[in-house]
Amino acid sequence: MTRRLASFSFAKRVPSTPSIGSTTVTKPDHIHLSFGFAAPHLFPIDQLSVSAAEAVTLHGRKALQYSGSGGPGKILKWIQNRSLVHGINAELNQILVTYGSTQGIDLATRILVDPGDHVWVESPSFFSALQAFRTAEAVITSFPIDEDGVRVDLIENALLEAKRNHKPIPKLVYTMPTYHNPGGVTLSVEKRKRLAELAETYNFYILEDDAYSELNFTGNKYPPLYTLIPERVIYLNTFSKIIGPGLRLGWLIADQHVIDKVRLLNLGGSIGVFTQEILAQLLENFAFQGHVDSLSRHYRKQRDVMAEAIKESFGEHVSFHLPEGGFYIWLRFDDHVNTSEFLQDAANRGVSFVDGKSFFVKPEGYQYARLCFSYVSEEQIVRGVKILADTYFAYLNNPVPS
Amino acid sequence: MTRRLASFSFAKRVPSTPSIGSTTVTKPDHIHLSFGFAAPHLFPIDQLSVSAAEAVTLHGRKALQYSGSGGPGKILKWIQNRSLVHGINAELNQILVTYGSTQGIDLATRILVDPGDHVWVESPSFFSALQAFRTAEAVITSFPIDEDGVRVDLIENALLEAKRNHKPIPKLVYTMPTYHNPGGVTLSVEKRKRLAELAETYNFYILEDDAYSELNFTGNKYPPLYTLIPERVIYLNTFSKIIGPGLRLGWLIADQHVIDKVRLLNLGGSIGVFTQEILAQLLENFAFQGHVDSLSRHYRKQRDVMAEAIKESFGEHVSFHLPEGGFYIWLRFDDHVNTSEFLQDAANRGVSFVDGKSFFVKPEGYQYARLCFSYVSEEQIVRGVKILADTYFAYLNNPVPS
Ligand SMILES: Cc1ncc(COP(=O)(O)O)c(C=O)c1O
Ligand SMILES: Cc1ncc(COP(=O)(O)O)c(C=O)c1O
Repeated sequence: MTRRLASFSFAKRVPSTPSIGSTTVTKPDHIHLSFGFAAPHLFPIDQLSVSAAEAVTLHGRKALQYSGSGGPGKILKWIQNRSLVHGINAELNQILVTYGSTQGIDLATRILVDPGDHVWVESPSFFSALQAFRTAEAVITSFPIDEDGVRVDLIENALLEAKRNHKPIPKLVYTMPTYHNPGGVTLSVEKRKRLAELAETYNFYILEDDAYSELNFTGNKYPPLYTLIPERVIYLNTFSKIIGPGLRLGWLIADQHVIDKVRLLNLGGSIGVFTQEILAQLLENFAFQGHVDSLSRHYRKQRDVMAEAIKESFGEHVSFHLPEGGFYIWLRFDDHVNTSEFLQDAANRGVSFVDGKSFFVKPEGYQYARLCFSYVSEEQIVRGVKILADTYFAYLNNPVPS
Repeated sequence: MTRRLASFSFAKRVPSTPSIGSTTVTKPDHIHLSFGFAAPHLFPIDQLSVSAAEAVTLHGRKALQYSGSGGPGKILKWIQNRSLVHGINAELNQILVTYGSTQGIDLATRILVDPGDHVWVESPSFFSALQAFRTAEAVITSFPIDEDGVRVDLIENALLEAKRNHKPIPKLVYTMPTYHNPGGVTLSVEKRKRLAELAETYNFYILEDDAYSELNFTGNKYPPLYTLIPERVIYLNTFSKIIGPGLRLGWLIADQHVIDKVRLLNLGGSIGVFTQEILAQLLENFAFQGHVDSLSRHYRKQRDVMAEAIKESFGEHVSFHLPEGGFYIWLRFDDHVNTSEFLQDAANRGVSFVDGKSFFVKPEGYQYARLCFSYVSEEQIVRGVKILADTYFAYLNNPVPS
């Protein structure tokens, strides 16, 4: 059967470019410095196996209905308590569980942004967030980061200028203030205060993506932006980096009326109920602080190994900020270097990374590369960085003709 | 701290009315004829408990990563095979797992519909679907159903007229052809063929919601619309009615390029990976056909008990179509009856149902009520219908002054 159908025009909200994902190399000895994945050997597998069976046995019939049994309620309480540790004081009805913070970003954006509205982001930024802003048909403007986070001074100037010239104020400013992905930097307390004041003065929302906040290598504490201006922050976090991303569970904290709107957009549906039952069962008998401490110790060690390897292999050819937490080192090469040009050669030699341009809205950032130290072993870090350096020096001696 | 913030204008796509959900009555002896829930005692709890523990123990580390272990792939194969039983021949890359068919409806709508585009639905229709169309800012038009499904002749007339007057053709027509919720009716083969032809001629998509297709009480078979015009159908189904809604897993079948667009909108994220691992483990050693047969036998019995109870308690005061499958009996009262007017009294007397108007786009359908026979016991059905009849006759003798 061959039918000749007229062509169909799909909705404009669907972007034409896919979000940058992980590379698809599957050779067993390939070194994935690209994957922003948690270290699998630190997943609480044994406890989870018990919890999974228990959740079904103890709460099975209700756990499998639309709204579940007690699990979702327990998860809310757990989030409420854990948030207090970070200075966030939220009522239960201000917390909403989402399918990972990825869905949180999408829902928050869609309640705030009409097509043509403005969204301001950091450059570099998180690619899935950029994709969410594109599908909301936002106009995206970006502001550079430096050693202590996004350039709030430039944001302030832009706001002033927008106001003066009757140009649009953003509906939302998206930021990863703590252990930035990919930049590795953390927004200073002073800049946090200023950004919160600007949100108040100019009346925009801050979308605070705090995915890595538990992975703290220094003990330094920074107040979440949410604590500075709760009325204008939508706060996002996730179980992906602290338990496991396959759960696909995260959460959103905001004013009750923001939560209500998000619920409406989410068609009132309950979220991953069965997984919530299992997770609730796990958290009930789980030494979470100890778990997070050992994650942080492990990742700090990995960071140190990677930083050392980079100095060893690259010498003066790169610079980077040593992150106080999180998963990433953001390498800066000389301005004439284009890391996209040796991405494929690196993959051929057995190591993958994410090239700089993937994190930017405009065509820029070519001289950067994101390396992730979370997923691989120490030995792989050392070997991977070495291979990458070899690739880079080969490229330097024989650059791709442009 | 009291701050005086300017008011903020949220996105227009957020509707102001919540979708109708379940009632919130939680008295233990309350009879929920409103809940469209599966019968909890038929959930495969024992097998699932084993599968959950196994999934973690056997595939734990990978199962907890973003893309999981082998589970998601096995689920796709299972869907592919099971679809064949219903005459649907799909490649693996034409199948996408979603968070229930609710998310399927939302994603399909958002790839097809720009604000102001037209969506045609059945009246009555499924409330969460209507909510999805509203959040996509669609213009919704509805067409009545009769004993054998939606009035395709009226759809045809409307298309002819739209074409003649250069008025908009719908981007999509949403239908529940088999065991309609709430109508209980099934679209005849002849009407299916005509609707498929219209989709071809007028170039619109059919969104085919097949959530109840496995719950077949008669053995009668109807070809899914997808089999008649796969290029213009997005087919949706779900594990909610056959395994358990708490899993929040469903699927979507469509052309590869439709799937690609849905993936983009979904920010490339993987869906409920951990739950997929558990479900895959379950399905591997599960006599699914036997399970579905016993579900169908059980629900048919429940339907018969309810139909009998209705005749007994209401006599000539109501009419309904005896459904060939699914969960619902759709009661029609005399035209001057407004079921919303005795909803509260019924709840007070211990029984809940969904009033007719909740299923319509326009202010109409007041003379209908949806009763669900899936969640409750036979004894509750008999008692619930009796209480409902008492409530109705009390209302009839003493109607709410309008
Ligand atoms: C900054 C940031 N936000 C959100 C996410 C997504 O997390 P989730 O798995 O909760 O969707 C990531 C994951 O890489 C991330 O780096
Ligand atoms: C017609 C119809 N479609 C979809 C759904 C939602 O199913 P899911 O649980 O897969 O989101 C329902 C559930 O009541 C339904 O009746």
